[in-house]
Amino acid sequence: MYQFIDNGTVTSAKGYYATGIHCGLKKRKKDVALIYSPTACTAAGTFTLNKVQAAPILVSKEIISKGTPVHAVLINSGNANACTGAQGHEDAIASQAYCAGLLSVPQASVLVSSTGVIGQLMPMHTFFSGIEQAVKTLRTDGGILAAKAIMTTDLQMKNFAVEVELTEGKVTIGGICKGSGMIMPNMATMLAFITTDAGIAQPLLQKMLVSAVNSSFNRISVDGDTSTNDMVILLANNAAGIAIEEGSESYNAFYSALEAVCKEMAKSIVVDGEGATKLVSISVHNAKTIADADDIARTIANSPLVKTAIHGCDANWGRILSAAGRSGVDFDPGKAKIYFDDLPILLEDYQIVLDEEKALAILQKDTMDIAIHINEGSCSTQWWTCDFSQDYIKINANYRT
Amino acid sequence: MYQFIDNGTVTSAKGYYATGIHCGLKKRKKDVALIYSPTACTAAGTFTLNKVQAAPILVSKEIISKGTPVHAVLINSGNANACTGAQGHEDAIASQAYCAGLLSVPQASVLVSSTGVIGQLMPMHTFFSGIEQAVKTLRTDGGILAAKAIMTTDLQMKNFAVEVELTEGKVTIGGICKGSGMIMPNMATMLAFITTDAGIAQPLLQKMLVSAVNSSFNRISVDGDTSTNDMVILLANNAAGIAIEEGSESYNAFYSALEAVCKEMAKSIVVDGEGATKLVSISVHNAKTIADADDIARTIANSPLVKTAIHGCDANWGRILSAAGRSGVDFDPGKAKIYFDDLPILLEDYQIVLDEEKALAILQKDTMDIAIHINEGSCSTQWWTCDFSQDYIKINANYRT
Repeated sequence: MYQFIDNGTVTSAKGYYATGIHCGLKKRKKDVALIYSPTACTAAGTFTLNKVQAAPILVSKEIISKGTPVHAVLINSGNANACTGAQGHEDAIASQAYCAGLLSVPQASVLVSSTGVIGQLMPMHTFFSGIEQAVKTLRTDGGILAAKAIMTTDLQMKNFAVEVELTEGKVTIGGICKGSGMIMPNMATMLAFITTDAGIAQPLLQKMLVSAVNSSFNRISVDGDTSTNDMVILLANNAAGIAIEEGSESYNAFYSALEAVCKEMAKSIVVDGEGATKLVSISVHNAKTIADADDIARTIANSPLVKTAIHGCDANWGRILSAAGRSGVDFDPGKAKIYFDDLPILLEDYQIVLDEEKALAILQKDTMDIAIHINEGSCSTQWWTCDFSQDYIKINANYRT
Repeated sequence: MYQFIDNGTVTSAKGYYATGIHCGLKKRKKDVALIYSPTACTAAGTFTLNKVQAAPILVSKEIISKGTPVHAVLINSGNANACTGAQGHEDAIASQAYCAGLLSVPQASVLVSSTGVIGQLMPMHTFFSGIEQAVKTLRTDGGILAAKAIMTTDLQMKNFAVEVELTEGKVTIGGICKGSGMIMPNMATMLAFITTDAGIAQPLLQKMLVSAVNSSFNRISVDGDTSTNDMVILLANNAAGIAIEEGSESYNAFYSALEAVCKEMAKSIVVDGEGATKLVSISVHNAKTIADADDIARTIANSPLVKTAIHGCDANWGRILSAAGRSGVDFDPGKAKIYFDDLPILLEDYQIVLDEEKALAILQKDTMDIAIHINEGSCSTQWWTCDFSQDYIKINANYRT
């Protein structure tokens, strides 16, 4: 049992402070965020698979892999500190140490994260002044400020939290994220920071995060192709005094809530960005394996022709089937079925049962589901994507009509 | 030794007739093309790898795979005859037979090809009238009409031809194609039809075409993801009375010319389409394998962030390196070098040697080369892509500045 909190954020859970300030890494907008827990947290993280890994990725990954207790996450926007060589690594370490000093916590208890321009050295004098300002302005309601400070091309601030009712009492999970669905297939840096006041041992926390990320951030059309700086961090400080153990009833309730927060964050990334007007879920059913289902869903979710057709409210199932056909998955297209929400569009043997009027009503909604059943097995998946609404796409959106 | 002919086309080689007419598959524009050689031709072809294959693909693939002599290629735009089941197959066969009857040639000597809307049955009455009109209007200078009739979302007609000087005399290779670089990563149907008056045995012709397609159409950012209808056809009618044998000097000269025609056609597809203002070649050097080089080149060529940076004349080498980093190829980014034409931008150990003014001068040209050297081996490749110039992309193009 969980419930979303209005305007919940990374300070909705007990015992967290946060802030977001402007120091000059960007021209005018906020560019440094800090999340802080006086109590040491267990910390989990997932990181970009790109061969080119930004300096802060390497620093933070080591902390997570060692299971080191964490007090703070220092995030800057405006400069990615990526492709910056040995100097970039030194700068990441220096920013971490400087922040740790100001907070009087161990250096290795500060995670660092950056997003912005690649290949430019961090202006450290500016950044240090920002870290100082951030530490001074930490607030128990500062989560919204932090959500603002991590934005780059994002048009919308992204923050969520849920309250979870457990038999032992109430815990909270809150998160902020950034990333923009406009850039397909992926590539804008995707960052997410999640906090909870539950108490969870590090290995279990890591396992839960990996699983939740896999069914959320890894199933949107902005994923897959990773940027140099992508990371998702989850902190647990046990300020609620409620421990979550594997296999317990509370574990399942907590995990469901965590996954729900991750899915909302992932979806918020999909719908952000110039021009996206619809959130579309892509469901694939009856695949031989989950990997097959994901390959088909990913290909449909990334297909510009599918996305333009959705924008043009064109029930162009041919583009959907064709995208599935080039996914690399072995299936018989003559056996495929396609649905928009519950409305059948195509049945077996290319039977077109499309009711244009009913399909149009679904296509005109803000959210819809496109499902394809491929009759090969029993595995399913769900991805999320957005429409392509840009003018230059109109030629394709209107091609059928 | 070969030379491009001004406004050369599929009737530039001796002994070919062609036409392009309007019958009503599209509202106003030409929608049926026919290419015809009274002398039977050897014929080679490459076809889409999509699991969903349009009816005409299946019909034409069988003809090519059997090495059947070919007299004609019947092409329609406006309707893809894809996902049309048993009826669609019958319709493709019927159009083939009807055309063969009018031409008095064997049914299996007529290749068929379609492009347009998926999932709608071909209006056969209309199509038959179009075939009749096409047969009646065949002309020795009709290649340009055919080039027009195969266009769908294409903004530009695409036709090329070269004269090849061999010791035995002169032969000609000419081609028309359609496809639009706007839709990335790929998906618009890509069709190409090439004719030559040289005499070449079918197995050798097939081998040459596969190789030429591999270094041209398969190395543009519109490829890889295939549509349901993609095909490339090469006909040889020996009207010049000059036979090409494998391993001869003439073979090499002819192959170079064929590859040149295919590359020009492929590049014309890349630069077509709303908004593309530049043709950019992506070269990858010093990879361990050709496959590695192609994976990196494809990822860079398909990267929206790279393409927007090019449009914004932003020497954003970080996006290029980051795209290479997510290609799945194992390499050390710290050893990579990046050049724009001959201008070094990034050298080993992240040494940024970028001269912004000189880089800008290159970025402002209509064509440029981006080269990345990855220091892992001795394999190279070259791909072609275009910039992304649409308004909605401006946010990213201008993000760095």
